[in-house]
Amino acid sequence: MDIEKANATAVEQMMETRPVLTGLGKAIDTVPGMRENLLLHAGPPITWERASGPMRGAITGALIYEGKAKDMAEAEALVTSGQVELEPCHHHQAVGPMAGVISSSMSVYILEDKTTGRKSYSNLNEGYGKVLRYGAYSDEVLERLRWMEEVMGPILADALEDSGGLDIRALLAEALHMGDEGHNRNKAGSILYTARLAPFVARCAPSPEVASEVLKFLGDNALSVLNPVMACCKAMADAAHGVEGSTIVSTMARNGTDFGIRVSGLGDRWFTAPVATPVGLYFPGFKAEDASGDIGDSVITETAGIGGFAMASAPAIVTFVSGTPKDAINATLEMYEICYAEHKYFTMPPLDFRGTPTGIDIRKVVEKNITPRVNTGIAHKDPGVGQVGAGLVRPPMAMFEAAVMAYAEKYGF
Amino acid sequence: MDIEKANATAVEQMMETRPVLTGLGKAIDTVPGMRENLLLHAGPPITWERASGPMRGAITGALIYEGKAKDMAEAEALVTSGQVELEPCHHHQAVGPMAGVISSSMSVYILEDKTTGRKSYSNLNEGYGKVLRYGAYSDEVLERLRWMEEVMGPILADALEDSGGLDIRALLAEALHMGDEGHNRNKAGSILYTARLAPFVARCAPSPEVASEVLKFLGDNALSVLNPVMACCKAMADAAHGVEGSTIVSTMARNGTDFGIRVSGLGDRWFTAPVATPVGLYFPGFKAEDASGDIGDSVITETAGIGGFAMASAPAIVTFVSGTPKDAINATLEMYEICYAEHKYFTMPPLDFRGTPTGIDIRKVVEKNITPRVNTGIAHKDPGVGQVGAGLVRPPMAMFEAAVMAYAEKYGF
Repeated sequence: MDIEKANATAVEQMMETRPVLTGLGKAIDTVPGMRENLLLHAGPPITWERASGPMRGAITGALIYEGKAKDMAEAEALVTSGQVELEPCHHHQAVGPMAGVISSSMSVYILEDKTTGRKSYSNLNEGYGKVLRYGAYSDEVLERLRWMEEVMGPILADALEDSGGLDIRALLAEALHMGDEGHNRNKAGSILYTARLAPFVARCAPSPEVASEVLKFLGDNALSVLNPVMACCKAMADAAHGVEGSTIVSTMARNGTDFGIRVSGLGDRWFTAPVATPVGLYFPGFKAEDASGDIGDSVITETAGIGGFAMASAPAIVTFVSGTPKDAINATLEMYEICYAEHKYFTMPPLDFRGTPTGIDIRKVVEKNITPRVNTGIAHKDPGVGQVGAGLVRPPMAMFEAAVMAYAEKYGF
Repeated sequence: MDIEKANATAVEQMMETRPVLTGLGKAIDTVPGMRENLLLHAGPPITWERASGPMRGAITGALIYEGKAKDMAEAEALVTSGQVELEPCHHHQAVGPMAGVISSSMSVYILEDKTTGRKSYSNLNEGYGKVLRYGAYSDEVLERLRWMEEVMGPILADALEDSGGLDIRALLAEALHMGDEGHNRNKAGSILYTARLAPFVARCAPSPEVASEVLKFLGDNALSVLNPVMACCKAMADAAHGVEGSTIVSTMARNGTDFGIRVSGLGDRWFTAPVATPVGLYFPGFKAEDASGDIGDSVITETAGIGGFAMASAPAIVTFVSGTPKDAINATLEMYEICYAEHKYFTMPPLDFRGTPTGIDIRKVVEKNITPRVNTGIAHKDPGVGQVGAGLVRPPMAMFEAAVMAYAEKYGF
């Protein structure tokens, strides 16, 4: 078994994936394996009993949104009885930020790798504050979801079709030269996204007022592009999966209870361990005790070599964790220690256009005792509240150790 | 005479100016002192006889555009006979990039300092390639100018009015955190500008097709915001002017033949010297011998503490001059040597959010033998051609020496 060769193949396939955002579709019509009584969620598999507060809140919100439940008690009954099933987004070529709950009637972004035809999906971004992905499910949250579905969705679908598709890898490469790291800071990416779509939105909207409303919604949300970016990274990570003998991490994801990883050469098995709680800055009125455990599929960005791994390109983000720009550089330098390659297309001006650290090698993580750095939002631990801050987190070492053991067992060394 | 106190006052006034882009108007109705037979131009005063190729080209284009001339011979006759007069933009609270020619029927951006009511003006940006400001005046150039005037202008005017105005100082501060330096690189600023205006453009355009066309024009041009940024810097620099005893530079500008500066404590007198030729990268098919001498009012950005002075915030720009990001840091560090202050509102993440070097002190320039660094576009030396490259240039030391002598004469030391 030539591990180096396997890893070179896996990482090459990851970097050469070029996902283009081509359109939007209802999850039920679009996402492979989606069904009417299924909810997709972030992270590895989870049950209602073990689900965190924000995950329960988001499940409840989605079931109310779908007209299947009126409150959390009804939602709980549906899920615990098996009438409604829960499966990871990752089992359906999809990803969702924070709770990552996607129900059958929600629209998803469709990305297509122009080389291989590989597809990936993510839901639409709701903006800040009280939002479903952070476990809030008030009327205001559900109304916004309906507006996104009924008003914005069809316009985005038409606008994307008219545009001929947006190359998200190219957009990300640009954004990394504009102070983004692609996970917590997607400000440049989101306004690039808004500005690129604007000429098509203006033409596809049913009225100037509605065009204006949609453009304002996209432009005011510095995370507008996060979901397409995540789906882009999902396609890249999937391209690295399934290479016999490779020790490269092809999935990282958290559901608020468990962190889970999958490894290219180790099939579809999840290695999980209890999540840590992020360290970061809290919004006024909230403190560390309010925080949910680490949650969300957005760590797919770090899996593909951006986010916390590209901190050097986003010195302005250190204000989130009261660090200095030097800390941002050091964060990226540390990640080179555990990665197989430097990205061919994602480069960082402050490091002389060096490629971002790409392709986490489970052997290096264990040998060097360095876990990946993950930038993240922080949800309130109780359902119904929403976001309370943003910061940094590290995945538990136990998963990487278990994966190395499994690798030794499978490959015999 | 307390020079330090005078300079502190001048620079404080410069930094505290907060110009808001409030609207658009025809130059004839808007710019103070504008008249029907007047052309404004970049830099210190110039005559046809001494004007550079691109300046003659732009003057010719503007006179054809106004229906006053059919070709360069007629334009020359009008200007040399005095039927058409030439005066610097700077004498009319205005600035224009490169040749900077503004004629009476062209629209100008109107900026208003919300504290003092001080107004400043700039023309609309035409984009790249064959454009009037680089001395091109073919049919294609004039058609674009007409489209800008007749189609885009009225929409921008309405959109800006509806928006309640855009705080350009705040937008610049954001863009400096997104890899711009505000002069040669205005990519982040231009898409911020496009994204902010988009909801209003969508509503103000006469049809969705036209809204789409205008949004595409703004979004595809990474210099869309340059002209409002220059007018913003002009207002800031003007606020620093006229402080008795101050040695701070309050104007830098070039007309392609002469570089000129004015100094806060030395009245409206220009100190001039022949321009240098920029050093930079040339577009395919062009070389250093094709370059015009240094031209344009855009060096008002460096006068106000951004552009070449904020290179550290724009490491990606070093690719223009085959340097490294370290060179970008060093460029900014060098400029601290000749500046009075660090900007309160323009900060640079790569330098730990240190303020940009602001307020050039003529004494320091001469004593330390360091001239300001200026980022710039490069025009072809012949009229009618257009842009051939971009790079760096230094103003001639002779102007600063003459200004120090004049200061000694006026203030007696």
